[in-house]
Amino acid sequence: MEQRMSLVTLGVADLARARRFYEGLGWRVGMAVEGEVVFFQLNGLVLSLYPRAALARDAGVAEAGSGFTGITLAHNVRSKAEVDAVLGEAARVGGRIVRPALRAEWGGYSGYFTDPDGHLWEVAHNPGFPIDAEDNTRLG
Amino acid sequence: MEQRMSLVTLGVADLARARRFYEGLGWRVGMAVEGEVVFFQLNGLVLSLYPRAALARDAGVAEAGSGFTGITLAHNVRSKAEVDAVLGEAARVGGRIVRPALRAEWGGYSGYFTDPDGHLWEVAHNPGFPIDAEDNTRLG
Repeated sequence: MEQRMSLVTLGVADLARARRFYEGLGWRVGMAVEGEVVFFQLNGLVLSLYPRAALARDAGVAEAGSGFTGITLAHNVRSKAEVDAVLGEAARVGGRIVRPALRAEWGGYSGYFTDPDGHLWEVAHNPGFPIDAEDNTRLG
Repeated sequence: MEQRMSLVTLGVADLARARRFYEGLGWRVGMAVEGEVVFFQLNGLVLSLYPRAALARDAGVAEAGSGFTGITLAHNVRSKAEVDAVLGEAARVGGRIVRPALRAEWGGYSGYFTDPDGHLWEVAHNPGFPIDAEDNTRLG
């Protein structure tokens, strides 16, 4: 198996609401099928929004599930001030700040928000993991 | 918020076991702190393995959670045969095939496995989403 991630799919309860949230953050939809799926082109991979029940069905697992998902997505930024700005933006468009930004023991600064479906995003400034000109993150 | 994903962190019950699983798939660790965290450099982003309890604590949420996580990760490949090969490899190193590969209604071919912590990976051949020379996936 090559060392590659092509898509991250977030199961959502209301596709239109989830789309509005990410568009509210300033993201532009790359491709969508009305009422079925929404794709955003990110650096090197694609984020897709897909109805949660259909995602469980596609994966062949039961849809029931609750509590901590055990997965977090991180959006790294170039400064501490940008962490605060992005968390503020997320809160304004309906995200929930679950952990305010703090200086991290690993030397950076980060906080967490959840999207309307509870998917956890960490917004982080990590001076040890530079972001390159193509928006990619490289291990220092 | 720029349109970027920097890291995906998988909360794991046993860091050494999770590391062995991904190394068993042929992945090479890019950076690790013994007993604390393991990072893999992927195309443009980083996958990290981190103890589940510590991840929940970091995010400021309760650790309890069960059932469907509502998130899937996809590993796209260049052919149908490669889907079968990767699923076979995952099964041989301790992954569980939760949905055998099938022809998909969207025109491709895919199946799902879970890693030892139940994180869902779809292995897919999607002729509509080409993989470029840098291993990145671009909306067609």
